[in-house]
Amino acid sequence: MKIYDFPKGPYPTRVRIALAEKDMLSRVEFVMVDLYEGEHKRPEFIAAKNYSGTLPVLELDDGTCIGECTAITEYLDALDGTPKLTGNTPLEKGLIHMMTKRAEIELLDAVSVYFHHGTPGLGPKVELYQNPEWGFRQRDKAVRGMRYFDTVLSRQPYVAGEAFSMADIAVIGGLLFASLVELPVPDECEALRGWYAKMLRRESVRRQPAFSGLPVAVC
Amino acid sequence: MKIYDFPKGPYPTRVRIALAEKDMLSRVEFVMVDLYEGEHKRPEFIAAKNYSGTLPVLELDDGTCIGECTAITEYLDALDGTPKLTGNTPLEKGLIHMMTKRAEIELLDAVSVYFHHGTPGLGPKVELYQNPEWGFRQRDKAVRGMRYFDTVLSRQPYVAGEAFSMADIAVIGGLLFASLVELPVPDECEALRGWYAKMLRRESVRRQPAFSGLPVAVC
Repeated sequence: MKIYDFPKGPYPTRVRIALAEKDMLSRVEFVMVDLYEGEHKRPEFIAAKNYSGTLPVLELDDGTCIGECTAITEYLDALDGTPKLTGNTPLEKGLIHMMTKRAEIELLDAVSVYFHHGTPGLGPKVELYQNPEWGFRQRDKAVRGMRYFDTVLSRQPYVAGEAFSMADIAVIGGLLFASLVELPVPDECEALRGWYAKMLRRESVRRQPAFSGLPVAVC
Repeated sequence: MKIYDFPKGPYPTRVRIALAEKDMLSRVEFVMVDLYEGEHKRPEFIAAKNYSGTLPVLELDDGTCIGECTAITEYLDALDGTPKLTGNTPLEKGLIHMMTKRAEIELLDAVSVYFHHGTPGLGPKVELYQNPEWGFRQRDKAVRGMRYFDTVLSRQPYVAGEAFSMADIAVIGGLLFASLVELPVPDECEALRGWYAKMLRRESVRRQPAFSGLPVAVC
């Protein structure tokens, strides 16, 4: 298997964490795609690897490509017949998918839109259209999202309930991206900050390139 | 179980189709939420039912609420132990989730943003902020999305491969929403139009309130 990857990117980091949780990092060949050169927006990448022009993409040995972090995680988690990130019962599956999507909409994707539209983003060669007003709205939405996840985590130990899951990985991606654009978690979000500190000590997380060199107290 | 619902809405229709596919419509009580009155954006709905303020929401008998169509479909599809919409093998799961998300990003959600930002949407009581430029960009993205799905469906009978799945339901939702905002499928998208005609004849689809009164040749 190959992963088309940008090692420190928030979305690629989600799949890297999933691979580490499943002890599968050594089964994957990582192929660097330079986001700052816009390699992920080139027609040949879009045609052959991922119509949406995003990373990461998992390419199977037969050439089948799977994009979207949630889809890749579903695939990887099911491979050994013992899912640990995407749920086993109907209720677990439902809650994990809801909270993963919510982490994207309310936090990670919102920060991403802010990055691409409210900051220089990947630079003028890649950011051919920007809508700063929309970017700033999404930045504010992301901060509200942090407050929401703080409330969730003040009631339960993990984002989707009692166990670590794909939903935690999505929020980790959101806070990683927020730190890259210098959007801090509000001081009063103690539950979210405490959970993030715990996540940054987790083996599958702290070993990732995105977190190397960061002090554990970064959150 | 209850579903907080707006019967003709594109997103609620996705879950109604999933319920029909699983022969579960009779097990659900539908509770009308008036989108045009903004009932889904009221603080009490957001606090108690769905932080994201969207429909549909599935409420279980113990009060647990599951939002997001994909999450609700995962829950419903797993209930009887024989998933038919979300995949059985790792590859099926991966491809169905990828194509469902792609249908959202490239078509359904793009049309939704156009509706809320590039048209009067739900009216001035509900649309408190609009960014028309962003709305029009998303409208154009949705038309490109139609061309993409046309290419997909010229190669295979269903959106995620050889079988009907949650991904087809998401594209149906996208084309339903597109018809509501009068965004036609380009004439030359023959594979997409043929697939949609077939979908509109499917029992689980044509019985939905959103399609009642529509001629089968609507696409």
